[in-house]
Amino acid sequence: MYRSQPVVVDGLQYCNWSSSIYDQMALGSVDAVHATICYHENFIDTVKNIEDWNQRFEKHSDRIMPGRTADDILKAKAFGKTAIILGFQNCTPIEDDIYRIEVFHQLGVRIMQLSYNNQSLLAAGCYEEHDGGITRMGRQAIREMNRVGLLIDMSHSAERSTLEAIEYSTRPIAITHANPFSWHPALRNKSDRVLNALSESGGMLGLSLYPHHLRNSSDCSLEDFCEMVALTVDKLGIDHVGIGSDLCQDQPDSVVNWMRNGRWTRDQDFGEDNSSYAGFPDELPWFKDNRDFNTLRQGLRATGFGVQEANQIMGGNWVEFFRQAFDSKS
Amino acid sequence: MYRSQPVVVDGLQYCNWSSSIYDQMALGSVDAVHATICYHENFIDTVKNIEDWNQRFEKHSDRIMPGRTADDILKAKAFGKTAIILGFQNCTPIEDDIYRIEVFHQLGVRIMQLSYNNQSLLAAGCYEEHDGGITRMGRQAIREMNRVGLLIDMSHSAERSTLEAIEYSTRPIAITHANPFSWHPALRNKSDRVLNALSESGGMLGLSLYPHHLRNSSDCSLEDFCEMVALTVDKLGIDHVGIGSDLCQDQPDSVVNWMRNGRWTRDQDFGEDNSSYAGFPDELPWFKDNRDFNTLRQGLRATGFGVQEANQIMGGNWVEFFRQAFDSKS
Repeated sequence: MYRSQPVVVDGLQYCNWSSSIYDQMALGSVDAVHATICYHENFIDTVKNIEDWNQRFEKHSDRIMPGRTADDILKAKAFGKTAIILGFQNCTPIEDDIYRIEVFHQLGVRIMQLSYNNQSLLAAGCYEEHDGGITRMGRQAIREMNRVGLLIDMSHSAERSTLEAIEYSTRPIAITHANPFSWHPALRNKSDRVLNALSESGGMLGLSLYPHHLRNSSDCSLEDFCEMVALTVDKLGIDHVGIGSDLCQDQPDSVVNWMRNGRWTRDQDFGEDNSSYAGFPDELPWFKDNRDFNTLRQGLRATGFGVQEANQIMGGNWVEFFRQAFDSKS
Repeated sequence: MYRSQPVVVDGLQYCNWSSSIYDQMALGSVDAVHATICYHENFIDTVKNIEDWNQRFEKHSDRIMPGRTADDILKAKAFGKTAIILGFQNCTPIEDDIYRIEVFHQLGVRIMQLSYNNQSLLAAGCYEEHDGGITRMGRQAIREMNRVGLLIDMSHSAERSTLEAIEYSTRPIAITHANPFSWHPALRNKSDRVLNALSESGGMLGLSLYPHHLRNSSDCSLEDFCEMVALTVDKLGIDHVGIGSDLCQDQPDSVVNWMRNGRWTRDQDFGEDNSSYAGFPDELPWFKDNRDFNTLRQGLRATGFGVQEANQIMGGNWVEFFRQAFDSKS
């Protein structure tokens, strides 16, 4: 399958992976997806998740391939495949061993969040009441991630921790999936202070299509979303904005429950959802699966983005950013 | 061996355990020791450390026995043995699984620190620059520890985290091994604010004989130490003070290096020792092993403590405190 459209990259998905999803990626001309392989998993469970991906790459080699460099994305595009970039939404896989950062880079992982909602060994999460910033081990981890080329992602981290990560990191960092707090005041969305620091340091923001991050939740229209993209581009500059859909296709509600609760609490935690509803929110009617990236591009064009601008937002920016983020400096 | 002396309890040791140490415990009439089985170990490595203790209990049943209740200490005394109370100096063994608190209680563990020098998933450590207090998982853990009867120890935790642990815990907590900061300003020693909150809530402080926690380090005299005990008793009241020697007998320097660095840092960390000396400090000439508890008792008497007061400090207070701390409320 030859793809005539410019490159499309999604900054985050956690789908219940299947050949029908890989087919939808092809139909949406999606050239690369950052796929989560850890929310709460420890070292050995994460290695098992990598083993599962190795088997998927083997079995579905007509549709998907490992994405370990920016060039892999272009290669995937040329071959009509989707490059899968493996990443963690938490730092639990390294446990308290700094040397595992290099080990996971060797295993093909390219992105790691320093915390997921809660305090981690490295940084505070966005749902903590207090945020002490980057920890002693966190400073070590940032330096090591910078060295080996493991991209720092602060999507689920708290404000001060995020500002310090931007300050301490010698490479630009990413927030792969979140929206501006000024547009929709969710705890997971990011303040102007964070977004400005992010873009000024050369970082990237992936705008999220997850209903809890959107104004009017699942009723957010394509027009409203694209208006938010335009506002964000005005603030951060066209080079620093991409998409991180947070698509969790075909996952049962038990999965979102596990994302929120792991095994860290005996009380049930409802994350951003204060309604005590324990399931996934309803999907957006105009963004149900990877085929809808075509819809999104049309929406951006209709909002007034030029062809080249839409190309940058749909994936071009991620490719250029990953080119700087993933190479080893050691 | 019949022990005529009143009960002797040490609030913390991490020795290179051997039959000669068990013999010295007998010669020092030491009826119970809180023995560390974790600094950085994860779940499975901690289970292995418990397996090692199970074997020691079997092999050296003439000298040592498991200490799981206050009555076990009295039983040990009656049998001329030393009760070994297993405890963690860190929360790494539970990883991010709240349900492991009960599992470790079932395995005989009775004491757990919420953090060791660094930020943990539950609380900040005393060497962190910032202290965000007790985390979301930390609140859950405190409640669960209260429920099952696992004593909270904040010896290596930071100020705010310690104050919050005292506030949130429905059972009194302990600082098993530290001294007043006002007497010797080490980062590991505790402020008057913490010590007052500790004693007012019914908690216990074990005074430390580790040189870095002492005025004049390894040159601290028995008289100076006992003077510090008297000052502390004046502040906290006689019921809230015991001994937590932090004795690390027969351990090679590689062990203190591991305590400080684990595998969390690529830089070498020197803990409280700013001199960039990577070994254990010299031992106190008057406190080299468990036989020296006799010396300590004499020192307390010479400083002016009455027989009953010295008995409380040497172990009586720990026994009464453990009676409240270790029973299950579920």
